[in-house]
Amino acid sequence: MKVSVVRNVLEANDRLAGELRNLFADKAILALNLMSSPGAGKTSLLERTLADLAPEFKMAVIEGDLQTDNDARRVAATGAQAVQINTEGGCHLSCAQVLEALKQLDLEGLDILFIENVGNLVCPAEFDLGEDAKVTLLSVTEGDDKPEKYPLMFNLSEAALVNKVDLLPYVDFDMERARRFMRALNKDMPIFDVSCRTGRGLDDWYGWLRAKRAAKKTTRPSGREL
Amino acid sequence: MKVSVVRNVLEANDRLAGELRNLFADKAILALNLMSSPGAGKTSLLERTLADLAPEFKMAVIEGDLQTDNDARRVAATGAQAVQINTEGGCHLSCAQVLEALKQLDLEGLDILFIENVGNLVCPAEFDLGEDAKVTLLSVTEGDDKPEKYPLMFNLSEAALVNKVDLLPYVDFDMERARRFMRALNKDMPIFDVSCRTGRGLDDWYGWLRAKRAAKKTTRPSGREL
Repeated sequence: MKVSVVRNVLEANDRLAGELRNLFADKAILALNLMSSPGAGKTSLLERTLADLAPEFKMAVIEGDLQTDNDARRVAATGAQAVQINTEGGCHLSCAQVLEALKQLDLEGLDILFIENVGNLVCPAEFDLGEDAKVTLLSVTEGDDKPEKYPLMFNLSEAALVNKVDLLPYVDFDMERARRFMRALNKDMPIFDVSCRTGRGLDDWYGWLRAKRAAKKTTRPSGREL
Repeated sequence: MKVSVVRNVLEANDRLAGELRNLFADKAILALNLMSSPGAGKTSLLERTLADLAPEFKMAVIEGDLQTDNDARRVAATGAQAVQINTEGGCHLSCAQVLEALKQLDLEGLDILFIENVGNLVCPAEFDLGEDAKVTLLSVTEGDDKPEKYPLMFNLSEAALVNKVDLLPYVDFDMERARRFMRALNKDMPIFDVSCRTGRGLDDWYGWLRAKRAAKKTTRPSGREL
């Protein structure tokens, strides 16, 4: 019973995901679904990225949290459009919530939409949001074993960031071990070692974003009026 | 539809929770449900606690993870009994899983059972495991805003530990702000600042455990044969 209903919920979400995917294709918006444990640094990454790439791209953010609009206020301070979704206890974002949030954003000319999912290394991975790519952050303070223990998210992501590398001298984190687990799950995924505090490594992440953004422009479905 | 089925799942779990609660009462076992984000230090706390309190108490651990038996092996190395549950993608432990795991443990004379839940600051809080108390860990590397953003777990816990205080000099974490959020949710909850790496603050946690253990002995239902 539980399993079949969970399947129904996932199928309903998948139908709406198709709607979102068409919308993002029609408007040639690169949509990225950003996932991690609580406190791994998703919002810090967005603050940096929105500020540093503001001259190049028009960007917006959908922030998912159980409670508070802290994160939307943080990213809005960079000048980007931001909408907060409060899930009121829900452990992941759904397509219905993203569709609702999109009504509050000006999508014209938008280059990149970041969807910051609820901080949770498990459930968000199961819900397609019609995104072009999932991106997972791992903080070095969480431990190098986390990709092995929480495999689905790393398996489904097109890029991973290992954040807070400025703390490496103070924690037991074997970068090679973490990379080995990630590669076992997803052998060609780019992995960026970054510090959102110092800015280290962010240029490589920005390079990946530029390439994804450029590729998106060329995949607009032909023959459709925008 | 989704809501009613989720309610059914929760109700089915609650019925089994009563069974577990009776079992823990009959055998006078103090059962603690340990919850946190991935990598906040639940297993490290158990390694320390099991080693330091081995002369005083007979303790056992049920380890919950999506994958791997890493944590059961870590805590078994202290000499304690340990059983690993793999949820295969499930985002929390259920009573059915705990009942199954208990069959593999020798419960005679057991003083304390630690149930280390799946690393997830959201879903585990919703599932009663028949425990005497829920205990939540927060790592300073996750940020002082997490109790406000993930309130349910802190609201339902009888004790909280703020772990990795050895990293305070290297992160932006305002202890007073974190405590203020926790107190707003749960005004009398003891909050222990600890470092499982250095051992700092653990004596206070052990004091709380001793008091809970002593209280449990006196609450055995009267008139029941054991």
